[in-house]
Formats: sequence, structure tokens, C-alpha cells
Amino acid sequence: MRVEIVAVGTELLLGQIADTNGQWLGEQLAAAGVDSHFHQVVGDNLERIVSAFRIGLSRSDALIVCGGLGPTQDDITREAIANVMGVELERREDLIEHIAAMFRSRDREMPANNLRQADVPVGADVIEQRLGTAPGLICPLGTQVIYAVPGVPYEMTEMFERAILPDLRRRMALAGESGVIASRVIKTWGTSESALAEALAERIVEIDAQRLPVTLAFLASGIEGLKVRVTARGNDDAHVVSLLDEEATRVEGILRERLGDVIFGYDEETMESAVAALLESRSLTLAVAESVTGGMICARLVNVPGASHWLKGGVVAYDSQVKYDLLFVPEGPVVSADAAIAMAKGVAKQLGADVGLGITGVAGPTPQEDLPPGTVFVGVALGDSATAAALRLPGDRVRIRDYATISALNALRQHLSTR
Amino acid sequence: MRVEIVAVGTELLLGQIADTNGQWLGEQLAAAGVDSHFHQVVGDNLERIVSAFRIGLSRSDALIVCGGLGPTQDDITREAIANVMGVELERREDLIEHIAAMFRSRDREMPANNLRQADVPVGADVIEQRLGTAPGLICPLGTQVIYAVPGVPYEMTEMFERAILPDLRRRMALAGESGVIASRVIKTWGTSESALAEALAERIVEIDAQRLPVTLAFLASGIEGLKVRVTARGNDDAHVVSLLDEEATRVEGILRERLGDVIFGYDEETMESAVAALLESRSLTLAVAESVTGGMICARLVNVPGASHWLKGGVVAYDSQVKYDLLFVPEGPVVSADAAIAMAKGVAKQLGADVGLGITGVAGPTPQEDLPPGTVFVGVALGDSATAAALRLPGDRVRIRDYATISALNALRQHLSTR
Repeated sequence: MRVEIVAVGTELLLGQIADTNGQWLGEQLAAAGVDSHFHQVVGDNLERIVSAFRIGLSRSDALIVCGGLGPTQDDITREAIANVMGVELERREDLIEHIAAMFRSRDREMPANNLRQADVPVGADVIEQRLGTAPGLICPLGTQVIYAVPGVPYEMTEMFERAILPDLRRRMALAGESGVIASRVIKTWGTSESALAEALAERIVEIDAQRLPVTLAFLASGIEGLKVRVTARGNDDAHVVSLLDEEATRVEGILRERLGDVIFGYDEETMESAVAALLESRSLTLAVAESVTGGMICARLVNVPGASHWLKGGVVAYDSQVKYDLLFVPEGPVVSADAAIAMAKGVAKQLGADVGLGITGVAGPTPQEDLPPGTVFVGVALGDSATAAALRLPGDRVRIRDYATISALNALRQHLSTR
Repeated sequence: MRVEIVAVGTELLLGQIADTNGQWLGEQLAAAGVDSHFHQVVGDNLERIVSAFRIGLSRSDALIVCGGLGPTQDDITREAIANVMGVELERREDLIEHIAAMFRSRDREMPANNLRQADVPVGADVIEQRLGTAPGLICPLGTQVIYAVPGVPYEMTEMFERAILPDLRRRMALAGESGVIASRVIKTWGTSESALAEALAERIVEIDAQRLPVTLAFLASGIEGLKVRVTARGNDDAHVVSLLDEEATRVEGILRERLGDVIFGYDEETMESAVAALLESRSLTLAVAESVTGGMICARLVNVPGASHWLKGGVVAYDSQVKYDLLFVPEGPVVSADAAIAMAKGVAKQLGADVGLGITGVAGPTPQEDLPPGTVFVGVALGDSATAAALRLPGDRVRIRDYATISALNALRQHLSTR
């Protein structure tokens, strides 16, 4: 099954917005074991959209079209699909009522333009719209199919998961393609992609030699860490799940044995949610003292729902004097392991928290206290125990601060999981 | 002149990395007055890359190909271009020496694979590589051309600006297309896209009626603000620059008169750089007290080079007790204009800064102190003067915090520019 993504919208070509839908869909299709050989982006022009659809249908089994379902005269995905199908559009009364109800629920008048969103190519099925006004479409062309979804990311993802992926799975099963696929993402920090690959090389050779229906793939996701995706395939749900569990457990074991405590989460978990879970389970509160990261650690932590249960707050001690006055750091050099620990202890005391996290370093571009950019110290204080980690981070000012943020959270995670 | 962007790389199709190059190039081409009707993404497969190039050349005058110039066997953009040109690759001695020198300068051995980066299709010109190892290519096909650049964003942008854009301009001039284009972006915050459009509607009609060689375009850039791009065209540099100055000044005047102090910057300026410039020019230092934004304001401010000159630091007072104890906020409700001002005054005092910025609010999903999510108060304190702004921001938890961050910085900017 080959699926091609077609993003529609002049604003994408002009670079006014990023085509984040293409990336998200690419990842979902890969995880579902669906091939995708081409993506296209085309503007709001009927002739060119039709041409893009025809090119896509000449080489792929299905198109997922994002965008061009809005209410304005620019939104012509419906017309282009009807053109390629060789059918007319029909205005559906049930859809008019659904769109009108959406406007009523927001106490707003429905503009006449929105009636266009009730137009459906004859022979197409509708994907009910649950979050906005434009319904999605499933448009058969012989054994091929065009799916059309709104370009608004949260409407698109909801329709993909609810309607398109199940329809794709059904078609794959009909075509005799492997029915069930399950995958798990193992997230790591503190190692390199080549170290991960080396640790798992032997297992990958075994999988190949035994022709096992599992695959291991590596994804580098910048400051979200290095991921290992374990995928299992088969024809039976229970079997695939047990195969996945078994392989994921084996992979985790290998990584722990070879690389130590590098796994911080699975699937949708983040470094901050991992830290939050550890704090909540031990009923501990946290305060953060930041210098080089300037507030980025706190900002990531408050993304976790319920952060108010365990996060007291933090101090951004950008100026050295703030470190001395507010965090009780001894006067002197402020880029050192001792200073990081003093900051951690100081902020915990000042804010009345059980755990303190402190970070200090050089973001560059120039050295500070004779230390080169990328030199970073992280301190963690919990009761009487305190530890510091020294890091040498690569990259420019922005990357150093990004890496420092997740590295500090990882140091906190490791401290909390061992003490 | 129609230019098509072709991004090469299986990792793009799989969604492992985002195609940020496509967006950046789209914006640059639009700003240069170059049409771009299609973008393509294709994986590392010779037959499919060649097919994508042929499709592109059937409808566009030039292709900009990003990616596939690396040293591994997967990197086959060079082979695909030679195939489409109907020529061989030749290994260039001068390029081998350049790549070897790059490795020597990093004290590393050059792997044999890197020799592939010295391969050039016969008849193509080389774009010198100044930042990495892979040179770019300018490959003529009759009157058409394929430009090839590395997928690494900073290598790509450097080559585009230095070599590709000038070459495109030369070709446009030869084709008799308008020679000189200049544009300026006016950045605003605190108004809506429809209000901007309404304020400028009359001027746009005038421009149309008089067929002036200028255009006004609106770009919504999320938390970077709403932008108005003024573009002027002509055949003479000095004339175009004076036309642009005149029109931009007129637009600024209209916006100030109709919408007040909504302009915060031009072109590459950001809200944080605008704040930094105001503080530096008045030799003032700043401290920030954040609740709802959890450190995001400080994190944006430290992005400005030289932030240590004017930023003392901040306090993230996520827990109410921290507001009372560390920021001297009177015990009681903490989501109010009075609390925001108390936070601003408290943090300025505590950190010894001239100016204090305080922000408190409800990010949701649940109400707090009977106030709905999106309720945000910003306080600014400078000497004896203090002001507060009350905001009602739309969206979910993440959007409310993003909007609160830039809104707070804008309130500070407005306070500093009037007092």
C-alpha cells in the first residue's frame, strides 16, 4: 500500500506557515507500516491541484490531501477531487445542519460561504467533523482512494486516527498486506546514535537471520532525545502485542546493560513528565535555579499538567549578584560544580522545596571564567545528599541552552530514581 | 521565473525530521518576487528522484534540490542530476583537496566515502562549500537549471543567499523580468489580522488604482506577531529603495493613526530585541516575576545576545507562597492586576533591578480564583510608576502561555517607550 501526502495551500508555498502535517502524517504512516514515496505541496489553483492529484494517482494507491476545505473561494480541494473523479458536487442537507449547529453553539451567525463546506463529490463518503466546520472526505476511484482532511492540525490528526487509518488498515488487509502492526518508542538521553546502534547491532543481525517479524529503528529527535522504535507485525492482535512486549523488554535490557540508565520514557512520555512522575510518587516538591538556561527548565516543567502539585517555582539568576544574594552562593567563580550545588541548595531553601536543581554554564559565544562555551554544571540537592554533573555540550548558543535544559532534567531524573 | 523546490531524503518522508528548508526557501523566493507553484519531497531512491526532477522540469524553469549531497551510499542527488542531464560524473581534484583540508582542520581522518562529494556532473558549476564538506551545484539544462544544495539548513541558507539568489536574479533580468525587488517587514502585536487589513484597505485600493509597483501582504506568524510585508519593484536600485521607504513610512503612519502603538519591530527584529534595545538605550536593568508563563519570558529574553548587560534575572513564583514570601505580594488572591504590580515591584526590589515585569494568570484547563482560563494580568514597575494590563487570551494551555509571554513583553515595550 503506497500512500502519498498532498498539502494544499498557497500559504505553504510562500513559507507563511510550516507544513507540519506532512511530517506528522509521514511518521504515522511509517509506524503503521505504510509506504510513502512522495509528498507534494501545491497552491490554491484548480488546474495545478488537479495535476498534482493525477501525478499522485499515477504512482500511489491512496492520496491524503490536507487543506483547501475551508469556506472561502480559495478553498477548492472539493472541486479538484470532483474533477479527478469525473463527478459533480452535491450540497448535503445533513452537513448544512451540522455546520449551522456548530455556529449556533458558538453564538455566531453562519456566513453564506460556509455552505460550500456541505458540498461533497457524488459517490464520496463523509468523515464527520467533530472539532470544526469542514467535514473530511473519503473519495473512491476504482481501487484507489483520495482522503481529504482540513489543514488545521488538530482537526486533521483527529480525522486521521478515527477514520483514515482504520480505512487504510482495512484496505491493506483486503490486499493481503500484513494485518496488525504495533510499535513502542523507547526514549533515551545521554548516549549517541552510534552507541545505540552498536549496542543493538548484534540483536539486529539475529532478527535478520531468524527472519523475525520485528524491526528496530533509530530516530534522532534533537532535544527530545534519541529514540528506538520497536515494531512487531503479524495477523493476530494478541500475538503481535506479546511479540512487541518481548522484543521491547529485550531491547531495554540490552540498553541498560550496555549503556546504563539512559532510558527516560516510552511513547508519549517526555523528560519533564518522567521527572514529574518521580516527584509525585515520592510526594516531593521541586525548586529550580537557572543561570545559563534562563528559565527554560521551569518553562518545560510547567508544561506538565498538574505541575502545581510538585513545582514551587524557580529563580533565574542570570546576574552573578543574584546568585550570591538570593541563592546563598559563596562569592567567587559561578561556573563550577560547587556553584551548581550551592544554587540547588539555595533555591530549595529560599522557596521551601524538598528538592533543588541548579544549573550554571557558558552558552557563548565567548568564554566565561576561562571556560569555553558548552561548559555546563548541574547540581541536584535532596535532603543531605547533593550531586553535581559536569557537561561539555556541542553547538551554538541556542543548542547549548536546549541541550543543557534536557541534560539537567535528566540528571534530576537519575538522582531521583536512585536516591 | 518559476522555481520548484525538491527536498530529497527518506528521513523527511518518514517524518523523522521536519522539512524546514521548504518553508524558508518559499519565503525567500516570495520575497524576491519569484513564483513557486509546487514543492516536492522524495526519498533516497534514484529512479524516484529522477522522476521527481523530470516532473519539476516539465512545469518549472528552475529546481532547487535540497539534500542527498552527503558522503554515504544513500546520497544520490549527484547521480540523479547527471542522469537527467544525460552526462557522467567527474571527480574533481580541487574539490578533493578542499574536503581533505576541512577534515585536517578538525584533526580528523577523511573517510574514503567523502571522495564522492568531489563528484560533479560534467558541465555543472560548483558552489563553493564554506561551512561543511559537500559543495553545491549549478547544473544547466538548456535554458533551465537545477541548483543542488546540502540539506543542512545553515549550509543551505548560506549557499542560497551567496550563489543561488544572485544567479536567479541574473536569469530573471535576462528574461526581462523586473530587475530589482526590495521589501520590508513591519511587525505588530496587539491587533487582529482583520483590523490590519481594514486599516490598510483604502491604501491597497489606491495602489491598485494607480498601478503602483508596490504590494502589501499580511502574514500571521503566531507568537511572532502579525506582519505586514511592503514590497517595491523597479529597474533601478535607488528608485526601488526610495519607493520602499516612502510606502513603508506611509503604512506605518496609517497603522499608528488607526491602531495605536502596535508596531514593535522591522525585518529580523523580535519582541525581545525591541525590549532589549529600549533597556540598553536608557541604561536600565530588568527583573521578571513569572507565574503563569513559568520562565518563558526570561527564556526569550536571554536569547538576545548581550542580555547580561541589562537582565538581572527572574523569579518563577509558580506556588502562591513563593509570591508572598519572595516577592512581597500581600496574602490573598494572586490572579489580579494588584498582584501583577506587586510581583513586578517585588522582583525588582529582590533582584536589585531598575524595572520589574510581573505576570500572573490562569492557563487552564480549569478556572482559578473563579477566573476562566486565558485571564492574564501583566504588571510593569519602573521607579514610582507602575501600570497593569488585563488580558483575555484564547486557546489551550500551551497557546495561552505563548500569547501571555509575548503580550507581557509588548506591555513592557509600550511602558518603556512612553515613560
